Amino acid sequence: QSNVTIYGRLNTTVENQKNIDSADSKTVLNNVASRLGFKGTEDLGGGLKALFLIEHRFASDTGVAADEFWSGDAFVGLETPYGTVRAGRITSPAYYATADYVSLHNHDTGTSADAFYAAASQPKNTVAYLTPSFGGLTAEFAYSADEDVNKPFTKTWQAAVNYDAGPLHLGAGYDENDYGDKQVALRGLYELGAITLGGYYQLADSKDIGKRNSIRGAVQYTLGASEFHVNVGWADDWDDVSKSGAVQYTLGYNYNLSKRTKVYAFYTAINNDSGAAYGTEVDFGKDPRSFGVGIRHNF
Amino acid sequence: QSNVTIYGRLNTTVENQKNIDSADSKTVLNNVASRLGFKGTEDLGGGLKALFLIEHRFASDTGVAADEFWSGDAFVGLETPYGTVRAGRITSPAYYATADYVSLHNHDTGTSADAFYAAASQPKNTVAYLTPSFGGLTAEFAYSADEDVNKPFTKTWQAAVNYDAGPLHLGAGYDENDYGDKQVALRGLYELGAITLGGYYQLADSKDIGKRNSIRGAVQYTLGASEFHVNVGWADDWDDVSKSGAVQYTLGYNYNLSKRTKVYAFYTAINNDSGAAYGTEVDFGKDPRSFGVGIRHNF
Amino acid sequence: QSNVTIYGRLNTTVENQKNIDSADSKTVLNNVASRLGFKGTEDLGGGLKALFLIEHRFASDTGVAADEFWSGDAFVGLETPYGTVRAGRITSPAYYATADYVSLHNHDTGTSADAFYAAASQPKNTVAYLTPSFGGLTAEFAYSADEDVNKPFTKTWQAAVNYDAGPLHLGAGYDENDYGDKQVALRGLYELGAITLGGYYQLADSKDIGKRNSIRGAVQYTLGASEFHVNVGWADDWDDVSKSGAVQYTLGYNYNLSKRTKVYAFYTAINNDSGAAYGTEVDFGKDPRSFGVGIRHNF
Repeated sequence: QSNVTIYGRLNTTVENQKNIDSADSKTVLNNVASRLGFKGTEDLGGGLKALFLIEHRFASDTGVAADEFWSGDAFVGLETPYGTVRAGRITSPAYYATADYVSLHNHDTGTSADAFYAAASQPKNTVAYLTPSFGGLTAEFAYSADEDVNKPFTKTWQAAVNYDAGPLHLGAGYDENDYGDKQVALRGLYELGAITLGGYYQLADSKDIGKRNSIRGAVQYTLGASEFHVNVGWADDWDDVSKSGAVQYTLGYNYNLSKRTKVYAFYTAINNDSGAAYGTEVDFGKDPRSFGVGIRHNF
Repeated sequence: QSNVTIYGRLNTTVENQKNIDSADSKTVLNNVASRLGFKGTEDLGGGLKALFLIEHRFASDTGVAADEFWSGDAFVGLETPYGTVRAGRITSPAYYATADYVSLHNHDTGTSADAFYAAASQPKNTVAYLTPSFGGLTAEFAYSADEDVNKPFTKTWQAAVNYDAGPLHLGAGYDENDYGDKQVALRGLYELGAITLGGYYQLADSKDIGKRNSIRGAVQYTLGASEFHVNVGWADDWDDVSKSGAVQYTLGYNYNLSKRTKVYAFYTAINNDSGAAYGTEVDFGKDPRSFGVGIRHNF
Repeated sequence: QSNVTIYGRLNTTVENQKNIDSADSKTVLNNVASRLGFKGTEDLGGGLKALFLIEHRFASDTGVAADEFWSGDAFVGLETPYGTVRAGRITSPAYYATADYVSLHNHDTGTSADAFYAAASQPKNTVAYLTPSFGGLTAEFAYSADEDVNKPFTKTWQAAVNYDAGPLHLGAGYDENDYGDKQVALRGLYELGAITLGGYYQLADSKDIGKRNSIRGAVQYTLGASEFHVNVGWADDWDDVSKSGAVQYTLGYNYNLSKRTKVYAFYTAINNDSGAAYGTEVDFGKDPRSFGVGIRHNF
């Protein structure tokens, strides 16, 4: 079948968790953003290409599908010499340009995912326009229509910029919505031989609880098939919520059995101040932790 | 993988709509019958073939799956020299022989879909038998078992006839159900060089609201990669509902970037009499309209 | 696409049923464990292999997906010279080693499925370890974590043994759960030219209703493309439920149109004692029966 490419990822861990899902301690299997996708392009001549992608997310520990089946994106688009237009469900370009880019261990998924990144956009009913590359610089703009009645906000605007120059990679993202939330983030990443350094700063502005600064840094050291990761994030108080700051850190080790398959281990922790509850169903002021081992296989 | 063929379609529009979903006016992204299918045949020798098809429908604007996941059909069957038998979920042969055949713009999908065709059958738990072709003439018969408790009717019978003779294509469809509804429709289509003319007449007989006549005509003019479409339907009053008539018309323009990919624009409107509410969640007597631009990509 | 293999099965019957779903008599289409799967392996060198499998189950008669979409398994694993480890949703190895192995007609699926096999394990959040083969002998151990709050039991342990020596195939399975249920079963199967004989014995121990013995035997006779099947099971009373025994028997005929495609017919019946209700939504003491014809196509 030449018109469609199937791809996917199984990523599953066994974890010992504390203060997660409001449980003191438990040992669980965990899905880490496993997916199954179908995509393709068609060359239309004259610099035109049609493209599509639909990506399903599911729980690799239980076999249960995501509530919104193709929650990993569902779009069709046209690539032209003047840029690429896509329409459908589209994961935030502002997010990809910033938080996603630096979370080097396990790509910002699973228990060690970035707990602090604040989004002001939603992916559904979105039209996105990506510029051509100007010497390594691209920009993308996205608008999501006002159709989802289950959210406080539905109409959202985004802008994202990415710049690549050899070992240096910069990015910025902005989004806002009709409810009144907005955020801006700036990201940098530098490759220094075996070491990769990345980080981003975010200023989030929530209509309900005011502004908040946060920052994250990540270091990766590669030695043969081994990767060592350290990732630390800090979130200040929201202006209108006292004691709502937190610190998150992750120590990770990946062993690449091939380009497609790795086994890994990590320890991740969040220290919540008394008015913060970062993490997955965490009680206020509690500090979630997890030690996990896992396997990730791309296909 | 030789035993299975993957196929599908992304079809997404941006539309400005009036009086649809009981909203005065809104701009939305819209899914137009997007799908993902798996099918195959096996040659068993002696003129025998096994065949299967499962086709998923999903919302290309939001990534949400259809409530009944394989709602685009799910059947297995045997093709023999004496005809083809299929069993499973099977879209109405009576519908394919009539309303589906003439709706030339966008194949009777999306906002511009035929609002008047009245079906008396349902697709689930169906066995269908298709005759061999006798000089271009085929007939198909289908029976759906009495298993769906969520509908007023569940046991349904269908017959469909198709005849092809060069540029002339004729069809007829009949279905009825155990609740007491039935319908019959006659269709013709003629290819006249760059022009294609199609139309069908339907007599629907509803147990609850009596009989209704309706008629639809469609014209397609092809010029290079461009297609111009006009489609007009008229529905008379239901016998027992006064002022329940309506007129629907669509002007469509398709530009074929390739055999698989087109971009298009259309304007569609329904004029409902005071006792009619044709369209998607339309209030009685209101006139839904939509102007849309879209892209359709087959794979 | 070299990294993933698509496979599946459509299996659909038309059946005349009595005393099933609390209906006196009805004619229905029935799905018989139809599925669609994606799987793959990657050779990592040094005797290591990565492997994955996700298998969807759906109703081939209606097109409706299983509530838990990938209910036919969803796992990722590593094969090593020291055995194979898998993690995810994994169908019971204890079941595969015993009840599944001997139900020769239609592989223990559909209306003629084994009504008596009692499982004490569940598939979700499971880690399984399979030993290498020692002269035809393998053992597998599985543990399922305590995460499913919708069941009386969630934490389960399993062990399974399989032994193959030419025409002789032996197996045993054990599982138990934290609620207090357990079961053990022993299976044998012998290939004697055109005849295959199989059977298993099970001792089930339910915390709520005590112990129960059951036994099942199956005979297959192959003549060219035809297979004749007889399958008889007997379940004794549960210790704490009087008159809770039953007998189940199935007569089956398969005609193999190819290795992938068969058509078949069967008659299956359960005779329930007054305190037993084996079968699908059967009233106590009622005797479900079904005569069915079907087609199964593998791809």
